[in-house]
Amino acid sequence: MLATRDGDQIVLPGLASAHSHAFQRALRGHCQRTSSSQESFWSWRGTMYALASKLGPESIYDLARFAYAELAMAGVTAVGEFHYVHHQPGSQPYGNRTELAEQMIRAAQDVGIRICLQRVLYQRAGLGKELEDGQERFCDARVEDGLADVENLLARYGDTPGVTIGVALHSVRALGLDWIREASDFAKKRGLPLHMHLSEQMRELEECNTEHGTTPVALMRDNGVLDKDFVAVHATHLCAEEVTALGDARSFVCVCRTTERDLGDGHCDARALLGAGARLCTGIDSHAICDPFEEARAIELDQRTADQGRTRVTNAGPLLAAASSEGYAALGMSESYHSDEVRLRAGDPALVGATDAHLDDAVIFGGSPRAIESVRVGSARIVENGLHRDYEEIRRRYEHTFQALFRGAEFS
Amino acid sequence: MLATRDGDQIVLPGLASAHSHAFQRALRGHCQRTSSSQESFWSWRGTMYALASKLGPESIYDLARFAYAELAMAGVTAVGEFHYVHHQPGSQPYGNRTELAEQMIRAAQDVGIRICLQRVLYQRAGLGKELEDGQERFCDARVEDGLADVENLLARYGDTPGVTIGVALHSVRALGLDWIREASDFAKKRGLPLHMHLSEQMRELEECNTEHGTTPVALMRDNGVLDKDFVAVHATHLCAEEVTALGDARSFVCVCRTTERDLGDGHCDARALLGAGARLCTGIDSHAICDPFEEARAIELDQRTADQGRTRVTNAGPLLAAASSEGYAALGMSESYHSDEVRLRAGDPALVGATDAHLDDAVIFGGSPRAIESVRVGSARIVENGLHRDYEEIRRRYEHTFQALFRGAEFS
Repeated sequence: MLATRDGDQIVLPGLASAHSHAFQRALRGHCQRTSSSQESFWSWRGTMYALASKLGPESIYDLARFAYAELAMAGVTAVGEFHYVHHQPGSQPYGNRTELAEQMIRAAQDVGIRICLQRVLYQRAGLGKELEDGQERFCDARVEDGLADVENLLARYGDTPGVTIGVALHSVRALGLDWIREASDFAKKRGLPLHMHLSEQMRELEECNTEHGTTPVALMRDNGVLDKDFVAVHATHLCAEEVTALGDARSFVCVCRTTERDLGDGHCDARALLGAGARLCTGIDSHAICDPFEEARAIELDQRTADQGRTRVTNAGPLLAAASSEGYAALGMSESYHSDEVRLRAGDPALVGATDAHLDDAVIFGGSPRAIESVRVGSARIVENGLHRDYEEIRRRYEHTFQALFRGAEFS
Repeated sequence: MLATRDGDQIVLPGLASAHSHAFQRALRGHCQRTSSSQESFWSWRGTMYALASKLGPESIYDLARFAYAELAMAGVTAVGEFHYVHHQPGSQPYGNRTELAEQMIRAAQDVGIRICLQRVLYQRAGLGKELEDGQERFCDARVEDGLADVENLLARYGDTPGVTIGVALHSVRALGLDWIREASDFAKKRGLPLHMHLSEQMRELEECNTEHGTTPVALMRDNGVLDKDFVAVHATHLCAEEVTALGDARSFVCVCRTTERDLGDGHCDARALLGAGARLCTGIDSHAICDPFEEARAIELDQRTADQGRTRVTNAGPLLAAASSEGYAALGMSESYHSDEVRLRAGDPALVGATDAHLDDAVIFGGSPRAIESVRVGSARIVENGLHRDYEEIRRRYEHTFQALFRGAEFS
């Protein structure tokens, strides 16, 4: 049992959101309208690009700091930021090439949560495709440039408590095989976490098959990318061979149900993945909803809907581990896992009736951010009485930036 | 737009949970273990029966009062209680036959929310089946006995503000056609809401086909049960003919996603139902989770998972209506709808960034019980600063009763 009782509180380890795009928090509630009956992940992505194209160092910091404060108030003590907005609008790098990555790190530091900054490699719109509006900022001219940024981030933050640096491959779509191989080798030589969007949308599978004649996971396996430090994000549309490959490698799968549910992604077969030997973690990916308990239980509950049965993936213990210790491991932070603590009010309506024998069950299947009493990261208590220590200032700054970015107009 | 802004608050109409089994709140977190790989709705039902068999007038009141206080703290101002635990263990009626129904009403009154007490008719375990352990308490010897109870409840509460009386048909499984016809005619003569579990589990469809040679909804249509006061609860596994029948009758469908997701029920085709002319409302059925915002958005989000697209059922406005005005209508309380009010803190992390143009979207797709500031039913402010006025006393009493019922043992 991971959850324990201490008087009128329930004590949890720190919770990890292993996959995040913090700036997307600004889209919450703003891209839910029907613009056409063909509304899809791809139309959502257009809205998201419109937002990304407006961001600068200050605004991305303001949005991220609020998103991280919201995470903290929901019990999240460690975030994996899959960071792909690198350069100035128009693709010119900032004077300090890692300016925006450092803003994300600063945002996490100022909130007081741990961050694994996953510096994303992004080469192209897709095989033979022109870059779309908004994508220029994500791209490097050469893979070496992106990897040099990782080196610089490692040099600056390698000894910084609470910060780890990872490498991220955006996707099979956005990277040619040469970039994938080079970045993967780079990460492995240095023992860095290697994260990658894999098999989120059917179109990605079709494009991968056209370009490579195989599936995304098989392609990664055949190029030596899969291992215990690899984190496949989403892994929604896997065939049996891909499940076996991720399991054999003891790789992670980061399931992001609240985002996948929002984006119409389908959902991964977590039972098969666990059974094959893969490890599960969770991510509050797009921040459409910020609830790590829902993130974990949805892995099980959405499989119930699909199968029309109960206890289809696993029970509360492994789900709570996915939201905590496994997430820390996927972020290269295992050694910090025992330093952090989240306390819930056992008297919150969501948790009343929890018994010591079923404490994990109560937390995973009933828990909600309202029940958060306090959050401690290392020796710093960053949330007390449910409120982040700097919440009002962080919120006001976010609202100011939100208004300035959009001047009252809507995104879509 | 149903949501409006008032300074730093977002104002909503009262929210309705049109389908509730309040005592099942005690099962939260206590029936999520794998007892076998065949865990299902039916094994869950066995656990639920074990709980129901232990209840008496005081304990059912204590459990219901807590469940209703939790509803109130989540913004729910009106509940439809589908009440089927009628008699003493062993089937002997209480001296006052409607003792337990009145305890449910008293619980709602003491919390301060409106209640539509739906007196359930329950005849049998199924065609030709012996009653199972626990079912005796639900059954009447004759349909007239159950309907006389409804008459008595109408006589006692017909003029009571905040209380309406409805009739409920438990299910096609639990009622023969003669009982269904008689109870339906009874409800229609008096203009009472008529609620019924319909098409929740595949087994029900198979049994209906065996007994009647048709589908549950077609059977109701052919027996004159469907009309504008009829509420089909779940309606998960409908064929096109059934969708048309509910739509033509302008009947309601009460979708209970958090419970359906917990029980592995599958999910209904809400888009087809809306398109056919049916009306949607929502219900925090088993109280597995208590979140009316999740209840509403899940109608849309779970269809996205199934279809792998976005905006598949409808957008935020109709979803918020389903959780509010449509629920009131399904409970025979339309005239009270404008008397109640829920206020959310716009500064809650879940809602920050909401703009006036997208307020319904922010509430439905981002809302959470943590954002509740106050709840007013009629002239009574029952929740302030997120807390029900009697919460601590209600909680302590619930915990005491919970312990006494189970003496530290687990249900399953």
